[in-house]
Amino acid sequence: MKKVAVILSGSGVFDGAEIHETVISLLALSRAGAEYQCFAPNITQHHVVNHLTGEVAETEQRNVLVEAARIARGEIQDVAQLNAADFDALLLPGGFGAAKNLSDFAFKGAECQIDANVLKACQAFATAGKAAAYLCISPILIPQVYGHGAKGTIGTDSETAKAFNQLGGEHQACAVTEICVDQERKVISTPAYMLAENITEAAVGIEKAVDQLLAMA
Amino acid sequence: MKKVAVILSGSGVFDGAEIHETVISLLALSRAGAEYQCFAPNITQHHVVNHLTGEVAETEQRNVLVEAARIARGEIQDVAQLNAADFDALLLPGGFGAAKNLSDFAFKGAECQIDANVLKACQAFATAGKAAAYLCISPILIPQVYGHGAKGTIGTDSETAKAFNQLGGEHQACAVTEICVDQERKVISTPAYMLAENITEAAVGIEKAVDQLLAMA
Repeated sequence: MKKVAVILSGSGVFDGAEIHETVISLLALSRAGAEYQCFAPNITQHHVVNHLTGEVAETEQRNVLVEAARIARGEIQDVAQLNAADFDALLLPGGFGAAKNLSDFAFKGAECQIDANVLKACQAFATAGKAAAYLCISPILIPQVYGHGAKGTIGTDSETAKAFNQLGGEHQACAVTEICVDQERKVISTPAYMLAENITEAAVGIEKAVDQLLAMA
Repeated sequence: MKKVAVILSGSGVFDGAEIHETVISLLALSRAGAEYQCFAPNITQHHVVNHLTGEVAETEQRNVLVEAARIARGEIQDVAQLNAADFDALLLPGGFGAAKNLSDFAFKGAECQIDANVLKACQAFATAGKAAAYLCISPILIPQVYGHGAKGTIGTDSETAKAFNQLGGEHQACAVTEICVDQERKVISTPAYMLAENITEAAVGIEKAVDQLLAMA
């Protein structure tokens, strides 16, 4: 049974992990006979967004690991404890949390930095030659994890694609129902809700990404 | 295109809507070509549970509608606005939120009451003869919505089954991969995470429930 580590960034599209993308991924992994373990950084969220109004809840503070535990039904660990040797593959769903908590891409663009524990975990899979899948906006981490020339997609948004290239990657435009595969680095990406207009569209690309991930694992 | 109203109870298994059950339902509805609209009561959650530790976060307060908006990606309305005439069917995922926010079953057992706006919305579907699906623990609402003799399942837990009967229902034991159908009342239920040991098991019963719901809608 293949074991896959899943790194979450909170719970909710505007300040954490995209919930649909995460659950679709977990279900696809489980249905393919793989085992998964969720992880998240034990840090304070960049901010809390009221998902009804879209406004920042100025007085609220939430912890990324504690909120991500909602999607994981409590079965989650601090990403600082993630040992790549225990897993066959890695998966990161999207949501603004990837650009606000796992990194500061939402605020710094091509000058962004990745959370130290997340970067260390992702790089451990890269250097071990273990397959990884990055969904939605989380592929923005690929250039810094894999180094110069790594291929990935965030869909078709030209500003984000430009930043991906400025970070050292080679952006590939990709439809929501397709995946981008860097064969050499065993890294897969798909636009998901960067482009999806509904949950079915998101699921098509995510399920292809999971299939490819397990084929490469 | 069939339109389905989905009533959520927050976001997170221990104090709100079960996230896996909700997303699996939305995906199954969308893939079957149905349209969905999420709703939730605009009330304060009974409490907030830290999903990492399982402990109640005594100092925190959250709103059911605002938290449910996380699963719905912001596309959600107050359940007080739900007009059954605009929809073909109704679906309620589970999670402790159904027993803590939509009703007080978690605290009062067979003496429980249902939130007035939720009860009104659910009864409107019942009296219009429109199909409804209740997942996991949410079938505990069925006896009060449908009246004496309504059939439903919460799986196999004998205490909860007893309360279902005390409330006036006729509990049917049901496996996680099966559904219980009250043909006369067009009400469907399935145990989901009342029994599921993993997300794949939960999905089997939920997808059957959604198929039956749309067939009856």
